[in-house]
Amino acid sequence: MPYVNIRITREGTTPGQAGATPEQKAALIKGVSDLLLEVLNKPPSSTFVVIDEVELENWGVGGLPVEAYRRQVAAKGSG
Amino acid sequence: MPYVNIRITREGTTPGQAGATPEQKAALIKGVSDLLLEVLNKPPSSTFVVIDEVELENWGVGGLPVEAYRRQVAAKGSG
Amino acid sequence: MPYVNIRITREGTTPGQAGATPEQKAALIKGVSDLLLEVLNKPPSSTFVVIDEVELENWGVGGLPVEAYRRQVAAKGSG
Amino acid sequence: MPYVNIRITREGTTPGQAGATPEQKAALIKGVSDLLLEVLNKPPSSTFVVIDEVELENWGVGGLPVEAYRRQVAAKGSG
Amino acid sequence: MPYVNIRITREGTTPGQAGATPEQKAALIKGVSDLLLEVLNKPPSSTFVVIDEVELENWGVGGLPVEAYRRQVAAKGSG
Amino acid sequence: MPYVNIRITREGTTPGQAGATPEQKAALIKGVSDLLLEVLNKPPSSTFVVIDEVELENWGVGGLPVEAYRRQVAAKGSG
Repeated sequence: MPYVNIRITREGTTPGQAGATPEQKAALIKGVSDLLLEVLNKPPSSTFVVIDEVELENWGVGGLPVEAYRRQVAAKGSG
Repeated sequence: MPYVNIRITREGTTPGQAGATPEQKAALIKGVSDLLLEVLNKPPSSTFVVIDEVELENWGVGGLPVEAYRRQVAAKGSG
Repeated sequence: MPYVNIRITREGTTPGQAGATPEQKAALIKGVSDLLLEVLNKPPSSTFVVIDEVELENWGVGGLPVEAYRRQVAAKGSG
Repeated sequence: MPYVNIRITREGTTPGQAGATPEQKAALIKGVSDLLLEVLNKPPSSTFVVIDEVELENWGVGGLPVEAYRRQVAAKGSG
Repeated sequence: MPYVNIRITREGTTPGQAGATPEQKAALIKGVSDLLLEVLNKPPSSTFVVIDEVELENWGVGGLPVEAYRRQVAAKGSG
Repeated sequence: MPYVNIRITREGTTPGQAGATPEQKAALIKGVSDLLLEVLNKPPSSTFVVIDEVELENWGVGGLPVEAYRRQVAAKGSG
């Protein structure tokens, strides 16, 4: 009976997409459940997978909100 | 000073209800606080109870998003 | 299918007791499961309750580790 | 590579403000990252800070939803 | 930069094994990282996977600690 | 009434040190509480800070357990 919490930023993988699609979420749920069955023999029927989508301004890395951090990294890269 | 996190799917208990009602949430908060006072003598004034409501497509069980899993179980049940 | 996480400090409720007893943990598990059944009609068989016991020096309140905070409050109380 | 989760109620610090401002969130992210660098020598580039904003009716203390608890405390104060 | 938290009971998959082995943990870490790269194009270098192992008496399902629940289910099965 | 959870690997900052010292944990608790008071005017007396120390083999990044990842990065660095 594992509980798996996947925390991701709320953003899409293609332009115009606001966040992960239902299909992508279903793929994450299936993939994690299959993995726990394969590695630890945990039955999917008692494996919970919960996805949290976090607004970009609520996720920080490098001491900055994500979007500011990405701009900083990009600027350094093109420096 | 316990911290209790209750994670539930965002759905109502009666048709047309989008999620737990304020009264239901208040009942969960009171019930958990009373329980911790009774069992572990923890004063409610320093017991935090936080309820997270998770969209149905973000909660997986049985390797599927909840609604798909419920359809699968219902189909088997009527099989 | 709720997931409830109860975070408490690792300490007993009676002298000499290092932490919550198995009986107290079972009472918390039962109490939370009954509450979710009663308030939101969630079946206990798909309700997970996970108890985390945190070392006292790892829990802070009032800007201090718990034990230091309790000494501060006690000192103010007898002041 | 620390992961820091800051859970706060969704409310502003000034009248009319619905929640923490982007600037306040950025200050929390910077402050926590600087702190972990200073105390534990953790590089900010591999420190995640995630802020969760919780609706007031979803946060309980004193056995009550926060706003009811605050009214109770205020009433006692002016009693 | 996903953060994935895998919570499992502390138990082995083979007799005499107290919990998941380092190899099993490494397989979970790799599997989840590969999944997030494949589904959401998240680079593994900024994907955190954290495994929590929870004592059996601290995990409840069916209103009971896990081991008691398993005995109940087994008894019903052989009933 | 914020709840802040700081998750770090169980390791010291100086040779021979198995994990964060009580003094370092107290500094984290104070620093986070002061920050929340300063930025969001949250009183420390109702701010919980909980530190979780995670075994190195239970923390993954780059698709590997931390120690293996660090060896990989070091090898590339000296490559």
